[in-house]
Amino acid sequence: MSGSTPPEKLDPSRPGPADAGPAVVPPFVPGADAPTAPVPDPVAPRAHSTTLDDYTDRYSEAMRGMTPSEIRALFSVASRPEVVSLAGGMPFVEALPLQSIAGLMAEVVAAQGAVALQYGSGQGLPELRELICEVMDLEDITASPDDVVVTTGSQQALDMVSRVFLDPGDVVLAEGPSYVGALGTFQAARAEVVHVPMDADGLIPAELRSTLERLQAEGRRAKFLYTVPNFHNPAGVTLSEERRDEVMALAEQYDLLVVEDNPYGLLGFEEDPGRALRSRSESRVIYLGSFSKTFAAGLRVGWVLAPHAVRDKLVMVSEAQVLCPSNLTQKVVAEYLSKYPWREQIKVFQQVYQERRDAMLEALTSHMPEGVTWTHPKGGFYVWLTLPPGWDAKAMVPRALAHKVAYVPGVGFYADGDGARHLRLSYCYPPPERIREGVRRLAGVLEEEAELRDTFGALEVRPHPAGGRTASRGSEAPDPGTV
Amino acid sequence: MSGSTPPEKLDPSRPGPADAGPAVVPPFVPGADAPTAPVPDPVAPRAHSTTLDDYTDRYSEAMRGMTPSEIRALFSVASRPEVVSLAGGMPFVEALPLQSIAGLMAEVVAAQGAVALQYGSGQGLPELRELICEVMDLEDITASPDDVVVTTGSQQALDMVSRVFLDPGDVVLAEGPSYVGALGTFQAARAEVVHVPMDADGLIPAELRSTLERLQAEGRRAKFLYTVPNFHNPAGVTLSEERRDEVMALAEQYDLLVVEDNPYGLLGFEEDPGRALRSRSESRVIYLGSFSKTFAAGLRVGWVLAPHAVRDKLVMVSEAQVLCPSNLTQKVVAEYLSKYPWREQIKVFQQVYQERRDAMLEALTSHMPEGVTWTHPKGGFYVWLTLPPGWDAKAMVPRALAHKVAYVPGVGFYADGDGARHLRLSYCYPPPERIREGVRRLAGVLEEEAELRDTFGALEVRPHPAGGRTASRGSEAPDPGTV
Repeated sequence: MSGSTPPEKLDPSRPGPADAGPAVVPPFVPGADAPTAPVPDPVAPRAHSTTLDDYTDRYSEAMRGMTPSEIRALFSVASRPEVVSLAGGMPFVEALPLQSIAGLMAEVVAAQGAVALQYGSGQGLPELRELICEVMDLEDITASPDDVVVTTGSQQALDMVSRVFLDPGDVVLAEGPSYVGALGTFQAARAEVVHVPMDADGLIPAELRSTLERLQAEGRRAKFLYTVPNFHNPAGVTLSEERRDEVMALAEQYDLLVVEDNPYGLLGFEEDPGRALRSRSESRVIYLGSFSKTFAAGLRVGWVLAPHAVRDKLVMVSEAQVLCPSNLTQKVVAEYLSKYPWREQIKVFQQVYQERRDAMLEALTSHMPEGVTWTHPKGGFYVWLTLPPGWDAKAMVPRALAHKVAYVPGVGFYADGDGARHLRLSYCYPPPERIREGVRRLAGVLEEEAELRDTFGALEVRPHPAGGRTASRGSEAPDPGTV
Repeated sequence: MSGSTPPEKLDPSRPGPADAGPAVVPPFVPGADAPTAPVPDPVAPRAHSTTLDDYTDRYSEAMRGMTPSEIRALFSVASRPEVVSLAGGMPFVEALPLQSIAGLMAEVVAAQGAVALQYGSGQGLPELRELICEVMDLEDITASPDDVVVTTGSQQALDMVSRVFLDPGDVVLAEGPSYVGALGTFQAARAEVVHVPMDADGLIPAELRSTLERLQAEGRRAKFLYTVPNFHNPAGVTLSEERRDEVMALAEQYDLLVVEDNPYGLLGFEEDPGRALRSRSESRVIYLGSFSKTFAAGLRVGWVLAPHAVRDKLVMVSEAQVLCPSNLTQKVVAEYLSKYPWREQIKVFQQVYQERRDAMLEALTSHMPEGVTWTHPKGGFYVWLTLPPGWDAKAMVPRALAHKVAYVPGVGFYADGDGARHLRLSYCYPPPERIREGVRRLAGVLEEEAELRDTFGALEVRPHPAGGRTASRGSEAPDPGTV
């Protein structure tokens, strides 16, 4: 929230689904050189040789529930050098000591190549799992290496958890907004995501309770609560210490499993976030960790810590998915954690991101027009903006790109079409002066929008041309919304 | 097949499911120090605090179809130094030039660290996809890098294909026997695998035709045929050139999609295998490739080449699974393919494996008792043994381990409980003298079995204690059956 306002829900005026506009989104970069492709209608009868997709009658049911990333086309524009991208969630890996890491990797292969280049176990290298327990100890988690499963990034852990627990139609609780990569996985599992509102102190326990009560009254049960307690992506807020107790008390009371996703927990600026939920309960929490933000995303090394019986299932699923995680990247992480002063490196990251967070918050305070509010992250990568009621952040994307600034519109962070008046700004990658310039440009876009609205009147929901969708085009760069 | 016999079906006397013995397999290493854990009954009512698995009422339907690997416990015994393991499918990475690779990796990080350590695209690095097309060109495949998706090993490609196409109950055709890692993925998707018999020339087209006809008569359609045409795992046979044409003609006639899995194609000894099925049809074949056997399994880099529309779906699924493959390992492969004489390295691998194949075949000819036959691989890693009718290769495993030799029993390579009188021997990892010693020991086990049968009479199917299962224990080493 903007500092001058008391904590309020991140989206107190959530419109119902009926107000949320068409679920099929328009290509929002018309005329831009982002490649687009026509998307065949999955219910259309199969034509002969002229059909664009000859395989529509063979796809699984799950594929029908998966839609291409809405923001892929955005990225090919956002990655142009003249555009300030506040869209991506890429860590600033340039802050890493590349020469040291190069040396460390060479050593791993020269000295341990026969293992590093070989198949490994589905659960991951024992030496790395022990080191992971030391990392988790920093967040007050006591765990056995035997209950840790190394994953190909935290995304695989999300997918594994989904496959172990979710059947089509199952309910998953998640903060609103929530991490888009998790939503994509729940969508792939054809689960129903029920959002629980947040405010500046994170997930609101009273809202969680009323949601659990409602589900109970309906005879339904949530398979789990998915939550990012620390420096939330995209909301930028942190669950208060007091609320952590309340959330876990509710989990006990309602027999709720909690999936705690914590990629940013060690990237706090002023202070550490509250103790991990996992430190409060071994049996109710499945904990997801990642080296993508504290070391290097390109290694794709994450982990999941789970109660023993669940861990068994997770290993089985991981073996069906990837056989085993890369021994090479695991060895590199293990070597880095053993031989390199990685806690000092995390301090370097903290300083880099804090400086950028400061630049963004100062620029927002200086430039944002009245009626726009935002969160004040104490760590992590993201600020969540709330526009005045009725505004549509996605509809403004083409204008923003014309002004050479990019952000991620909020709708992608909701499973139910909500989030129209929100947008995510990231400060992790661009240097401070670019962040300030980007916020200035964004302010110009919003001023223009305000003027247009004053002149022509507010249009609650803009009409979209039907059927136009942005297709996956296999972009060469990471999807800015998913990281 | 043993060289003296004409081509015959690999398992001409396949028993029906009723003869196949209990689906629940016994712990076959009783009393060994392989860790085992009791497996809770998934249908048992949930007890209170004494329950071993508090989560049984939450698991997905798919988890109920997944059973722990039967051969995990075997491996902890098989990996003891005194045991000759002919069980594992680990490539002999010690034949790689470790110092060169170490240098190459250091160069990648030092010069391209900002990309190598960063998130990448879901589809994979364009430079690697171009090089992959050059590799496929060696097998007469003409492809566009745009239709290639880089995967976290070929296993992920299998899982992606399963998720794009398979709903529970769908039919998949696969050779009998078939790759256990693929069967696990189809099982996870709850598909029904229908095996098509093979002989020394690979998949039998007449059997494929009759299976397709039968399905058609039943009003069912196979979602795809999964096949390993070259140096089959586990059968060690190669689909003849003539049969490749016949299989593709049947695919046309019956509108069948073919998933061609080709990890061993470049590892032929005397001659190259036939042209890839993908070189005969762009639209009917999804092609899976891997660097695990031609370079290094520890990198976890594979790929899938698919018709354009399918490629779009595969990228979406991969993003939901792992976000993106590791940029670091992709860069290492790209650098290796660009700067290192990798074709020469493949020749080194060919020579290593040919020498070991020769050692195994010679030892089999010298030592195997009458009534045992085996295939004569012209490349790849495996020999498939057929025991006399009524013998049970899995029941003999404890005795084999007592004789300090390990193999993988055949049942794991069938989805339908078949394969009891078969076993897989691998010659990829142990040196020739160990292979000879292992085959000698195995011959001793078989002689002993023959004597026992002469003395006590043949027991067609041995009774197994009910309910005893080998649980996943997160072993520290790769599962010998899955690679």
